[in-house]
Amino acid sequence: MPHITLPEGLPGIRSLAVYRPETGQPLYELAQALLRSGSPDSTLTSAERELIAAFVSKQNCTAFCMNSHAAASRYLYGDQRDLVDDVLNNPDNASIAPKLKALLAIAHHVQADARTVSNALVAAARTEGATDGDIHDTVLIAASFCMYNRYVDGLATLTPTDPAAYEAMGERMGTLGYQVPKTT
Amino acid sequence: MPHITLPEGLPGIRSLAVYRPETGQPLYELAQALLRSGSPDSTLTSAERELIAAFVSKQNCTAFCMNSHAAASRYLYGDQRDLVDDVLNNPDNASIAPKLKALLAIAHHVQADARTVSNALVAAARTEGATDGDIHDTVLIAASFCMYNRYVDGLATLTPTDPAAYEAMGERMGTLGYQVPKTT
Repeated sequence: MPHITLPEGLPGIRSLAVYRPETGQPLYELAQALLRSGSPDSTLTSAERELIAAFVSKQNCTAFCMNSHAAASRYLYGDQRDLVDDVLNNPDNASIAPKLKALLAIAHHVQADARTVSNALVAAARTEGATDGDIHDTVLIAASFCMYNRYVDGLATLTPTDPAAYEAMGERMGTLGYQVPKTT
Repeated sequence: MPHITLPEGLPGIRSLAVYRPETGQPLYELAQALLRSGSPDSTLTSAERELIAAFVSKQNCTAFCMNSHAAASRYLYGDQRDLVDDVLNNPDNASIAPKLKALLAIAHHVQADARTVSNALVAAARTEGATDGDIHDTVLIAASFCMYNRYVDGLATLTPTDPAAYEAMGERMGTLGYQVPKTT
Protein backbone atom coordinates (compact mmCIF):
# COMPACT_ATOMS: atom_id res chain seq x y z
CA MET A 1 0.00 0.00 0.00
CA PRO A 2 1.39 3.42 -0.90
CA HIS A 3 2.83 5.55 1.93
CA ILE A 4 0.64 8.53 0.96
CA THR A 5 -2.91 8.80 -0.39
CA LEU A 6 -2.63 8.41 -4.17
CA PRO A 7 -5.29 8.08 -6.89
CA GLU A 8 -6.49 4.49 -6.75
CA GLY A 9 -5.91 1.95 -9.50
CA LEU A 10 -3.05 3.78 -11.22
CA PRO A 11 0.36 2.07 -11.07
CA GLY A 12 3.83 3.45 -10.32
CA ILE A 13 4.80 6.84 -11.68
CA ARG A 14 1.35 7.39 -13.22
CA SER A 15 -0.28 7.60 -9.79
CA LEU A 16 2.38 10.12 -8.72
CA ALA A 17 2.03 12.30 -11.82
CA VAL A 18 -1.72 12.56 -11.27
CA TYR A 19 -1.23 13.18 -7.53
CA ARG A 20 1.26 16.00 -8.14
CA PRO A 21 1.16 17.34 -11.72
CA GLU A 22 3.54 20.21 -10.84
CA THR A 23 6.36 17.67 -10.64
CA GLY A 24 4.74 15.11 -12.96
CA GLN A 25 4.95 17.52 -15.89
CA PRO A 26 8.76 18.02 -15.89
CA LEU A 27 9.29 14.34 -15.04
CA TYR A 28 7.32 13.25 -18.11
CA GLU A 29 8.95 15.91 -20.31
CA LEU A 30 12.35 14.63 -19.24
CA ALA A 31 11.37 11.06 -20.10
CA GLN A 32 10.10 12.13 -23.51
CA ALA A 33 13.29 14.13 -24.26
CA LEU A 34 15.54 11.25 -23.18
CA LEU A 35 13.69 8.16 -24.35
CA ARG A 36 12.25 9.52 -27.61
CA SER A 37 13.76 12.74 -28.95
CA GLY A 38 17.37 12.29 -27.84
CA SER A 39 20.35 14.55 -28.46
CA PRO A 40 20.66 15.82 -32.05
CA ASP A 41 23.94 13.96 -32.63
CA SER A 42 22.88 10.76 -30.88
CA THR A 43 22.66 7.49 -32.78
CA LEU A 44 20.62 5.65 -30.14
CA THR A 45 17.21 4.33 -31.17
CA SER A 46 14.15 4.57 -28.92
CA ALA A 47 14.32 0.77 -28.47
CA GLU A 48 17.91 1.08 -27.22
CA ARG A 49 17.02 3.99 -24.90
CA GLU A 50 14.19 1.96 -23.35
CA LEU A 51 16.58 -0.95 -22.95
CA ILE A 52 19.07 1.21 -21.01
CA ALA A 53 16.17 2.36 -18.79
CA ALA A 54 15.06 -1.23 -18.13
CA PHE A 55 18.68 -2.34 -17.54
CA VAL A 56 19.26 0.34 -14.87
CA SER A 57 15.85 -0.33 -13.29
CA LYS A 58 16.82 -4.00 -12.99
CA GLN A 59 20.05 -2.99 -11.20
CA ASN A 60 17.91 -0.94 -8.80
CA CYS A 61 15.48 -3.87 -8.38
CA THR A 62 12.49 -1.68 -9.29
CA ALA A 63 10.04 -4.13 -10.82
CA PHE A 64 7.55 -1.55 -12.10
CA CYS A 65 10.07 0.45 -14.14
CA MET A 66 11.99 -2.63 -15.28
CA ASN A 67 8.90 -4.43 -16.54
CA SER A 68 7.28 -1.42 -18.18
CA HIS A 69 10.39 -0.16 -19.98
CA ALA A 70 11.40 -3.70 -20.99
CA ALA A 71 7.93 -4.04 -22.52
CA ALA A 72 8.33 -0.72 -24.37
CA SER A 73 11.74 -1.82 -25.64
CA ARG A 74 10.37 -5.19 -26.83
CA TYR A 75 7.55 -3.39 -28.64
CA LEU A 76 9.99 -1.01 -30.34
CA TYR A 77 12.53 -3.74 -31.25
CA GLY A 78 9.77 -5.66 -33.06
CA ASP A 79 11.28 -8.79 -34.64
CA GLN A 80 14.40 -8.38 -32.53
CA ARG A 81 12.45 -8.26 -29.27
CA ASP A 82 14.31 -11.24 -27.78
CA LEU A 83 17.39 -9.04 -27.45
CA VAL A 84 15.75 -7.24 -24.53
CA ASP A 85 15.61 -10.29 -22.30
CA ASP A 86 19.03 -11.41 -23.51
CA VAL A 87 20.49 -8.12 -22.31
CA LEU A 88 18.58 -8.11 -19.02
CA ASN A 89 19.59 -11.71 -18.25
CA ASN A 90 23.19 -11.64 -19.46
CA PRO A 91 24.37 -8.35 -20.97
CA ASP A 92 27.92 -9.57 -21.62
CA ASN A 93 26.75 -12.36 -23.91
CA ALA A 94 23.87 -10.59 -25.68
CA SER A 95 24.10 -10.20 -29.47
CA ILE A 96 24.02 -6.41 -29.47
CA ALA A 97 26.32 -3.94 -31.20
CA PRO A 98 29.62 -3.29 -29.36
CA LYS A 99 28.65 0.40 -29.13
CA LEU A 100 25.50 -0.38 -27.15
CA LYS A 101 27.43 -2.82 -24.99
CA ALA A 102 29.99 -0.11 -24.17
CA LEU A 103 27.20 2.36 -23.36
CA LEU A 104 25.51 -0.18 -21.06
CA ALA A 105 28.82 -0.50 -19.21
CA ILE A 106 28.76 3.27 -18.65
CA ALA A 107 25.13 3.09 -17.48
CA HIS A 108 26.09 0.33 -15.06
CA HIS A 109 28.77 2.55 -13.49
CA VAL A 110 26.42 5.56 -13.31
CA GLN A 111 23.95 3.46 -11.32
CA ALA A 112 26.53 2.03 -8.92
CA ASP A 113 28.73 5.11 -8.40
CA ALA A 114 28.86 7.72 -11.15
CA ARG A 115 32.30 8.87 -10.03
CA THR A 116 33.64 5.59 -11.46
CA VAL A 117 32.74 6.48 -15.06
CA SER A 118 36.36 6.52 -16.21
CA ASN A 119 38.12 7.99 -19.23
CA ALA A 120 38.79 4.40 -20.31
CA LEU A 121 35.07 3.49 -20.30
CA VAL A 122 34.24 6.59 -22.32
CA ALA A 123 37.12 6.00 -24.74
CA ALA A 124 35.94 2.41 -25.27
CA ALA A 125 32.47 3.68 -26.21
CA ARG A 126 33.94 6.24 -28.63
CA THR A 127 36.05 3.54 -30.30
CA GLU A 128 32.80 1.70 -31.06
CA GLY A 129 31.27 4.85 -32.58
CA ALA A 130 29.56 6.54 -29.64
CA THR A 131 29.09 10.31 -30.03
CA ASP A 132 29.02 12.99 -27.33
CA GLY A 133 25.22 12.83 -27.54
CA ASP A 134 25.23 9.06 -27.03
CA ILE A 135 27.42 9.39 -23.95
CA HIS A 136 25.40 12.30 -22.57
CA ASP A 137 22.07 10.59 -23.12
CA THR A 138 23.27 7.29 -21.66
CA VAL A 139 24.53 8.98 -18.50
CA LEU A 140 21.33 10.98 -18.06
CA ILE A 141 19.02 8.03 -18.82
CA ALA A 142 20.88 5.97 -16.21
CA ALA A 143 20.89 8.86 -13.71
CA SER A 144 17.22 9.68 -14.25
CA PHE A 145 16.16 6.07 -13.68
CA CYS A 146 18.03 6.17 -10.39
CA MET A 147 15.47 8.89 -9.61
CA TYR A 148 12.31 7.37 -11.13
CA ASN A 149 13.10 4.01 -9.48
CA ARG A 150 13.55 5.60 -6.04
CA TYR A 151 10.43 7.75 -6.46
CA VAL A 152 8.10 4.80 -7.12
CA ASP A 153 9.80 2.52 -4.57
CA GLY A 154 10.21 5.16 -1.85
CA LEU A 155 6.47 5.85 -1.85
CA ALA A 156 5.53 2.16 -2.27
CA THR A 157 3.37 2.77 -5.33
CA LEU A 158 1.19 0.10 -6.90
CA THR A 159 3.20 -2.47 -8.89
CA PRO A 160 1.08 -4.72 -11.13
CA THR A 161 2.07 -8.38 -11.25
CA ASP A 162 0.23 -9.42 -14.43
CA PRO A 163 2.62 -9.51 -17.44
CA ALA A 164 -0.27 -8.54 -19.73
CA ALA A 165 -0.55 -5.20 -17.91
CA TYR A 166 3.06 -4.42 -18.78
CA GLU A 167 2.62 -5.53 -22.38
CA ALA A 168 -0.22 -3.01 -22.75
CA MET A 169 1.90 -0.31 -21.08
CA GLY A 170 4.83 -1.07 -23.38
CA GLU A 171 2.68 -0.69 -26.48
CA ARG A 172 1.27 2.60 -25.20
CA MET A 173 4.73 3.92 -24.31
CA GLY A 174 6.07 2.73 -27.67
CA THR A 175 3.34 4.45 -29.69
CA LEU A 176 2.36 7.53 -27.65
CA GLY A 177 5.56 8.23 -25.71
CA TYR A 178 5.38 10.10 -22.42
CA GLN A 179 2.48 12.39 -21.66
CA VAL A 180 1.23 13.23 -18.18
CA PRO A 181 -1.88 11.10 -17.55
CA LYS A 182 -5.19 12.96 -17.56
CA THR A 183 -6.45 13.65 -14.08
CA THR A 184 -10.08 13.09 -14.96
CA MET B 1 38.06 17.34 -17.49
CA PRO B 2 34.50 16.60 -18.62
CA HIS B 3 33.91 13.41 -20.65
CA ILE B 4 32.13 15.36 -23.43
CA THR B 5 32.66 18.82 -24.91
CA LEU B 6 30.76 21.25 -22.67
CA PRO B 7 30.61 25.06 -22.61
CA GLU B 8 33.78 26.21 -20.89
CA GLY B 9 33.86 27.92 -17.51
CA LEU B 10 30.40 26.83 -16.36
CA PRO B 11 30.29 24.44 -13.39
CA GLY B 12 28.27 21.27 -12.78
CA ILE B 13 24.66 21.15 -13.91
CA ARG B 14 24.86 24.65 -15.44
CA SER B 15 27.27 23.44 -18.13
CA LEU B 16 24.92 20.54 -18.90
CA ALA B 17 21.78 22.69 -19.09
CA VAL B 18 23.47 25.01 -21.59
CA TYR B 19 24.88 22.04 -23.55
CA ARG B 20 21.46 20.37 -23.82
CA PRO B 21 18.56 22.75 -23.06
CA GLU B 22 15.98 20.13 -24.13
CA THR B 23 16.76 18.20 -20.95
CA GLY B 24 18.00 21.22 -18.97
CA GLN B 25 14.56 22.83 -19.08
CA PRO B 26 12.62 20.01 -17.34
CA LEU B 27 15.53 19.43 -14.95
CA TYR B 28 15.44 23.07 -13.80
CA GLU B 29 11.62 23.12 -13.67
CA LEU B 30 11.72 20.05 -11.45
CA ALA B 31 14.25 21.72 -9.12
CA GLN B 32 12.11 24.86 -8.92
CA ALA B 33 8.94 22.85 -8.17
CA LEU B 34 10.67 20.78 -5.48
CA LEU B 35 13.04 23.24 -3.84
CA ARG B 36 10.87 26.37 -3.98
CA SER B 37 7.16 25.86 -4.71
CA GLY B 38 6.59 22.54 -2.93
CA SER B 39 3.38 20.57 -2.56
CA PRO B 40 0.35 22.67 -1.51
CA ASP B 41 0.01 20.87 1.84
CA SER B 42 3.72 20.78 2.60
CA THR B 43 5.15 22.56 5.62
CA LEU B 44 8.79 22.42 4.49
CA THR B 45 10.58 25.73 4.00
CA SER B 46 12.93 26.38 1.09
CA ALA B 47 15.86 26.33 3.54
CA GLU B 48 14.83 22.84 4.71
CA ARG B 49 14.36 21.62 1.12
CA GLU B 50 17.86 22.82 0.20
CA LEU B 51 19.19 21.09 3.30
CA ILE B 52 17.66 17.76 2.27
CA ALA B 53 19.26 18.23 -1.18
CA ALA B 54 22.68 18.94 0.35
CA PHE B 55 22.31 16.03 2.80
CA VAL B 56 21.59 13.51 0.02
CA SER B 57 24.37 14.97 -2.16
CA LYS B 58 26.78 14.43 0.72
CA GLN B 59 25.69 10.79 0.96
CA ASN B 60 26.41 10.48 -2.77
CA CYS B 61 29.78 12.25 -2.32
CA THR B 62 28.94 14.82 -5.02
CA ALA B 63 30.89 17.89 -3.95
CA PHE B 64 29.36 20.31 -6.47
CA CYS B 65 25.74 19.66 -5.46
CA MET B 66 26.52 19.35 -1.77
CA ASN B 67 28.42 22.64 -1.61
CA SER B 68 26.03 24.64 -3.77
CA HIS B 69 22.83 23.47 -2.05
CA ALA B 70 24.41 23.79 1.39
CA ALA B 71 25.27 27.38 0.47
CA ALA B 72 21.69 28.02 -0.69
CA SER B 73 20.37 26.53 2.55
CA ARG B 74 22.71 28.68 4.66
CA TYR B 75 21.59 31.77 2.76
CA LEU B 76 17.92 30.92 3.29
CA TYR B 77 18.35 29.98 6.98
CA GLY B 78 19.88 33.41 7.65
CA ASP B 79 20.65 33.72 11.37
CA GLN B 80 20.21 29.97 11.80
CA ARG B 81 22.73 29.15 9.06
CA ASP B 82 24.93 27.08 11.40
CA LEU B 83 22.23 24.40 11.44
CA VAL B 84 23.22 23.43 7.91
CA ASP B 85 26.71 22.31 8.83
CA ASP B 86 25.44 20.78 12.07
CA VAL B 87 23.10 18.55 10.04
CA LEU B 88 25.70 17.69 7.41
CA ASN B 89 28.30 16.81 10.03
CA ASN B 90 26.09 15.01 12.55
CA PRO B 91 22.39 14.86 11.67
CA ASP B 92 21.45 12.85 14.78
CA ASN B 93 22.69 15.54 17.15
CA ALA B 94 21.64 18.65 15.20
CA SER B 95 19.17 21.05 16.90
CA ILE B 96 16.46 20.72 14.27
CA ALA B 97 12.76 19.99 14.69
CA PRO B 98 11.92 16.28 15.16
CA LYS B 99 9.78 16.45 12.01
CA LEU B 100 12.76 17.46 9.86
CA LYS B 101 14.91 14.82 11.53
CA ALA B 102 12.33 12.15 10.70
CA LEU B 103 12.15 13.35 7.08
CA LEU B 104 15.95 13.28 6.78
CA ALA B 105 15.82 9.64 7.93
CA ILE B 106 13.43 8.92 5.05
CA ALA B 107 15.72 10.78 2.63
CA HIS B 108 18.64 8.70 3.86
CA HIS B 109 16.78 5.47 3.06
CA VAL B 110 15.68 6.74 -0.37
CA GLN B 111 19.32 7.39 -1.25
CA ALA B 112 20.60 4.03 -0.02
CA ASP B 113 17.75 1.76 -1.15
CA ALA B 114 14.29 3.28 -1.55
CA ARG B 115 12.64 -0.09 -0.98
CA THR B 116 13.66 0.25 2.68
CA VAL B 117 11.41 3.27 3.31
CA SER B 118 9.24 1.43 5.84
CA ASN B 119 5.78 2.06 7.26
CA ALA B 120 7.51 2.70 10.59
CA LEU B 121 9.73 5.47 9.16
CA VAL B 122 6.72 7.14 7.56
CA ALA B 123 4.62 6.77 10.72
CA ALA B 124 7.41 8.35 12.78
CA ALA B 125 7.43 11.37 10.46
CA ARG B 126 3.64 11.69 10.68
CA THR B 127 3.79 11.56 14.48
CA GLU B 128 6.05 14.63 14.32
CA GLY B 129 3.57 16.45 12.07
CA ALA B 130 4.68 15.52 8.55
CA THR B 131 1.93 15.75 5.91
CA ASP B 132 1.51 13.68 2.75
CA GLY B 133 3.09 16.59 0.86
CA ASP B 134 6.11 16.62 3.19
CA ILE B 135 6.65 12.89 2.71
CA HIS B 136 6.14 13.13 -1.07
CA ASP B 137 8.46 16.09 -1.46
CA THR B 138 11.15 14.55 0.74
CA VAL B 139 11.14 11.31 -1.24
CA LEU B 140 11.27 13.13 -4.58
CA ILE B 141 13.95 15.61 -3.47
CA ALA B 142 16.10 12.69 -2.29
CA ALA B 143 15.38 10.68 -5.46
CA SER B 144 16.03 13.63 -7.78
CA PHE B 145 19.39 14.36 -6.17
CA CYS B 146 20.34 10.74 -6.79
CA MET B 147 19.87 11.80 -10.44
CA TYR B 148 21.46 15.28 -10.40
CA ASN B 149 24.46 13.92 -8.48
CA ARG B 150 25.02 11.09 -10.96
CA TYR B 151 24.54 13.41 -13.94
CA VAL B 152 27.27 15.85 -12.90
CA ASP B 153 29.61 13.12 -11.63
CA GLY B 154 29.03 10.69 -14.52
CA LEU B 155 30.10 13.33 -17.05
CA ALA B 156 32.92 14.66 -14.84
CA THR B 157 31.69 18.26 -14.97
CA LEU B 158 33.67 21.19 -13.60
CA THR B 159 33.60 21.34 -9.77
CA PRO B 160 34.88 24.66 -8.33
CA THR B 161 37.04 24.38 -5.22
CA ASP B 162 36.81 28.01 -4.01
CA PRO B 163 34.24 28.33 -1.17
CA ALA B 164 33.48 31.89 -2.33
CA ALA B 165 32.19 30.51 -5.63
CA TYR B 166 29.62 28.40 -3.76
CA GLU B 167 28.64 31.29 -1.52
CA ALA B 168 27.79 33.35 -4.61
CA MET B 169 25.87 30.40 -6.09
CA GLY B 170 23.95 29.94 -2.85
CA GLU B 171 22.86 33.57 -2.82
CA ARG B 172 21.77 33.38 -6.47
CA MET B 173 19.85 30.12 -5.87
CA GLY B 174 18.32 31.59 -2.70
CA THR B 175 17.11 34.75 -4.43
CA LEU B 176 16.41 33.76 -8.05
CA GLY B 177 15.62 30.06 -7.70
CA TYR B 178 16.16 27.73 -10.65
CA GLN B 179 16.13 29.09 -14.18
CA VAL B 180 17.96 27.54 -17.13
CA PRO B 181 21.13 29.57 -17.69
CA LYS B 182 21.16 31.77 -20.77
CA THR B 183 23.10 30.23 -23.64
CA THR B 184 24.52 33.54 -24.84
